[in-house]
Amino acid sequence: MSDALPKRVRITEVGPRDGLQNEHTHIDTTIKAAFIRALIEAGHTDIEVTSFVRPDRVPQLADAEALFQALGPAPEGVTYSALVPNMTGLERAREAGVRKIAVFTAASESFNQRNINATVAESIEHFRPVTNEARAEGLAVRGYVSTAVCCPYEGRIEPDAVLDVVKRLQELGCDEISVGDTIGAASPADIARLLDVLVPNITLDTLVLHLHDTRGMAVANATEALRHGVQAFDASAGGLGGCPFAPGSAGNLATEDLIFLLDGLGIEHGLDFEAQRRASATIGPHLDHSLASRVYHAPPLPGD
Amino acid sequence: MSDALPKRVRITEVGPRDGLQNEHTHIDTTIKAAFIRALIEAGHTDIEVTSFVRPDRVPQLADAEALFQALGPAPEGVTYSALVPNMTGLERAREAGVRKIAVFTAASESFNQRNINATVAESIEHFRPVTNEARAEGLAVRGYVSTAVCCPYEGRIEPDAVLDVVKRLQELGCDEISVGDTIGAASPADIARLLDVLVPNITLDTLVLHLHDTRGMAVANATEALRHGVQAFDASAGGLGGCPFAPGSAGNLATEDLIFLLDGLGIEHGLDFEAQRRASATIGPHLDHSLASRVYHAPPLPGD
Repeated sequence: MSDALPKRVRITEVGPRDGLQNEHTHIDTTIKAAFIRALIEAGHTDIEVTSFVRPDRVPQLADAEALFQALGPAPEGVTYSALVPNMTGLERAREAGVRKIAVFTAASESFNQRNINATVAESIEHFRPVTNEARAEGLAVRGYVSTAVCCPYEGRIEPDAVLDVVKRLQELGCDEISVGDTIGAASPADIARLLDVLVPNITLDTLVLHLHDTRGMAVANATEALRHGVQAFDASAGGLGGCPFAPGSAGNLATEDLIFLLDGLGIEHGLDFEAQRRASATIGPHLDHSLASRVYHAPPLPGD
Repeated sequence: MSDALPKRVRITEVGPRDGLQNEHTHIDTTIKAAFIRALIEAGHTDIEVTSFVRPDRVPQLADAEALFQALGPAPEGVTYSALVPNMTGLERAREAGVRKIAVFTAASESFNQRNINATVAESIEHFRPVTNEARAEGLAVRGYVSTAVCCPYEGRIEPDAVLDVVKRLQELGCDEISVGDTIGAASPADIARLLDVLVPNITLDTLVLHLHDTRGMAVANATEALRHGVQAFDASAGGLGGCPFAPGSAGNLATEDLIFLLDGLGIEHGLDFEAQRRASATIGPHLDHSLASRVYHAPPLPGD
């Protein structure tokens, strides 16, 4: 297809956090821990485990401490990370022994205003002490830039606005920056426009693309990103992350779908497909809907 | 993204035939007719209405005559087509006033053997009198080449084998040839390999790509095909065509998803998205599962 495709891609499994945070059926800590252990069996080395946010805001993730306790220390070669919105969250994460944190902002001013009542610049200033403290303690830091293509309130976002936020997060010392099509609005042309601006202006190996499959474009968008040299993606087991009130609505780019794509393109990823599917199967029965991933439900191909 | 993208794409809506043929809930002829009228409202000019196959083989399409009667003559600018497996089917289609027929073979020898107990060459000889007769009467003829990427019995199919069948169908006088990834096995790299062989060797405007979304790759594969200059696609309202016994299984490339992609890429298609969605909504409630299309279920984007 193209010489520009990367040889290997790094996948961060965000199913336990981004995938589960909006699920309304209560999922026990022991089930989450079993899910995460199954993800490790599948070969995952980067797993976003939970968020240290206010329990009343995200009830599904209220067991963050208990989950880390159930998991114990991360196995050799595996990094557990957790979302941390502020110093209180950082304290909790530190207590739980977390070695990688993620902070969160958006490319859209309206989105930040509505969500945290701050400008983009203010939101970054809010977590400057968090990232400073984390870095001083040797923690790895991820920065999220959401609504990088379209904002549910103001519509299309200019790539230059995304680049501006990405650069600020780099200046804060983020080791990696996950740029998200939060509402799954992008077509491959949008991804091309975004990456035409980002890729020449940032260090490529710090860029992670975070796609949602809300409109069925996630795999096509990942393919476009690979053509631009993107080497790291977020993905979610079974496509967790959809809106639980909309039957048929899709969530994050499904890890299974991404594996199928990468295998087809001959790009290494280090994951075992069947073990990934087993991991998704540990969580699927505890939801009130079927998993959104196409590949998860598909029979194996002859010869595979 | 690329200068090679076509300016306009022609979509053949195959929901009423390929989409419904495996649905096990009985759908009344009046509902099918209303569905097809709604598709015309959405701007469709090419609709595959049904099959004139043995009613005991495909019970869902046993009302082929009644459906054409309910529809009446196709409106100006609209072509109704029907699948015709043999001379009996052609007779029935002719009686019903059909002006475009489709014949059906596969690139895989094993698939033909198991389905119609004939080699690929024999299957083509079987329908030679059908296409001769149809052409003599001035009917348009479509040829299907299924399993063009992978066969459920023998696995991967070589692009050269597909080219061979496509050429034979061209020699038979088929006006267009729909090349199908019948089991949704392709990744974009497979589509690239296939089209690298087909496109230089056939007349591009006779080629139609028929994709299934079984493994979530349909939109990515359509994108790859557009890069190769493909100008015509089959698609199915709401993504009809999945296996009704596998919850979450996907069917044909959904017309809504294709429209979203083409709009994103700035490629004309002549369809009205909301009217397409209304057409899908006429049939969705009569199925025992939700429609597979992602875009069908997604909320409108701000500004759209």
